[in-house]
Amino acid sequence: MTSTGVSDSLLADGLVRIARDVDETFDQLLPLPQDPRARLIEAMRYACIGGGKRLRPLLLTATAEMFGVDRDAALRAGVAIEAIHVYSLIHDDLPCMDDDALRHGKPTVHRAFDEATAVLAGDALHAFAFELLADPETSGDPFTRIELVATLGQASGFQGMAGGQMMDMMAEESAFDLQTITRLQQLKTGALLGASVEMGAILGRIPPEGRTNLRGYARDIGLAFQIVDDLLDHEGDEEAAGKALRKDAVQGKQTFVSLLGPERARSQAQMLVDQAVAQLASHGVEADLLRALARYIVERNH
Amino acid sequence: MTSTGVSDSLLADGLVRIARDVDETFDQLLPLPQDPRARLIEAMRYACIGGGKRLRPLLLTATAEMFGVDRDAALRAGVAIEAIHVYSLIHDDLPCMDDDALRHGKPTVHRAFDEATAVLAGDALHAFAFELLADPETSGDPFTRIELVATLGQASGFQGMAGGQMMDMMAEESAFDLQTITRLQQLKTGALLGASVEMGAILGRIPPEGRTNLRGYARDIGLAFQIVDDLLDHEGDEEAAGKALRKDAVQGKQTFVSLLGPERARSQAQMLVDQAVAQLASHGVEADLLRALARYIVERNH
Repeated sequence: MTSTGVSDSLLADGLVRIARDVDETFDQLLPLPQDPRARLIEAMRYACIGGGKRLRPLLLTATAEMFGVDRDAALRAGVAIEAIHVYSLIHDDLPCMDDDALRHGKPTVHRAFDEATAVLAGDALHAFAFELLADPETSGDPFTRIELVATLGQASGFQGMAGGQMMDMMAEESAFDLQTITRLQQLKTGALLGASVEMGAILGRIPPEGRTNLRGYARDIGLAFQIVDDLLDHEGDEEAAGKALRKDAVQGKQTFVSLLGPERARSQAQMLVDQAVAQLASHGVEADLLRALARYIVERNH
Repeated sequence: MTSTGVSDSLLADGLVRIARDVDETFDQLLPLPQDPRARLIEAMRYACIGGGKRLRPLLLTATAEMFGVDRDAALRAGVAIEAIHVYSLIHDDLPCMDDDALRHGKPTVHRAFDEATAVLAGDALHAFAFELLADPETSGDPFTRIELVATLGQASGFQGMAGGQMMDMMAEESAFDLQTITRLQQLKTGALLGASVEMGAILGRIPPEGRTNLRGYARDIGLAFQIVDDLLDHEGDEEAAGKALRKDAVQGKQTFVSLLGPERARSQAQMLVDQAVAQLASHGVEADLLRALARYIVERNH
């Protein structure tokens, strides 16, 4: 078997395993209550179980595994960050935001339930993420837990994802340049992808000064991820994506593809992935899954 | 000056002081950035600064002060819980939820800005609350910080406020009995009021077993608060309230007033406040502000 073959199966196994484990963890942590709150938890479960690539939990658990962290602990932190990602998708899909009908090939939460339940399910998942990180089962060490909370809070708030989301809304009215689009995407998707890697290192008790290369890796794959997202939005297949495509063009938003053209965008993404892999040079085979993940980001077709 | 006079001025001073301090803290912690995120932070500031009774921060700081906690630390935790309260109001006011035009006598966030910005401002305040609690400036002790996060997460999520909000939405379709309405209100408003007192005690390093009476106090005033809210909704003045009233009756929702009648509801609220004050019997003058606050809850007219 070639080295690429080994790395392919490492990635394929990792993707299958994380999808199963994330589903199981959500299922365990969100049991249906026998009271009038049931509809809320049903909507949370509908959004969280059985969909998505689970890229953030995979980044987190792959990083944590490099440092010998117990898989159950890493999985709980991964589910917390996935809960934040899922809440942001539920709210982004709302009629007043992107007004999307499909997500992961099934009706969005506000279509399957109703708008008020979708707002509330997002809010409840948001709180659930922090509750989960604060739980001693995630880490026996309160300092580790509070660092996880601080990292996720910053990555998801106005200094991170929510700030990027606001910039994205402004992008419909202003013709942003490449620098502003890069900043927008670093906040909107990069911050949470970066937090996934960072939280894996926090669970591994790696001090901030030991995380520099991992942060560089995360920044590079985050940007590459978004460039490929723009390429897939431009060229991709709606059925494979499980969601509506080419909305940016309709809304007149600038993207990496509109600013760079598809060819330069693709070579830029490839360059970023090579750079991300180079950031892992000081690590041995234990970083192979992170390397395979970086390559997967440019090679994926949805 | 009579004892009631002393307690009146203690409360009046406390209300003025907390309103000023909460405004100042939000102002400092949410500076306007010079980039396209500005509109998001403007909306957050619009919702957070200059309105509301600040009951939750007052409960938190009054409890913390009993145990000699530094006021700045208590204020930061108070602002975190107020950020959660404000985010819940922004989302509750949305067209898909209560569709309210006025809050604290001014246009709701989605009216003053737009719906998407309102959803996002609520989300960003939600993350901001946890970020603030995780910051070492709130407490130098990581165990204290993580306990604050755990308490606020549980009080605001599906086991607390968001769960109560879901029950409230179901109340339009089902004729809930008194027991279910009590449970609904304990989750919807009681959980966050309880967390305010609890977080003050956590900052004071009071162990869980030492918080029993304070929890009882918080549970009693939380329920009294909601009964009085129902009474004010039934009898109150829209201008004094700064928001639309009598919507429950229009929507056919059961309330304490519809189930008990106004007279029994009022005597029930008074009984709960007396019980709340009795829970503080083991404390001396240092609990006078909490006592005055309990009385204020039944005596307020908005």
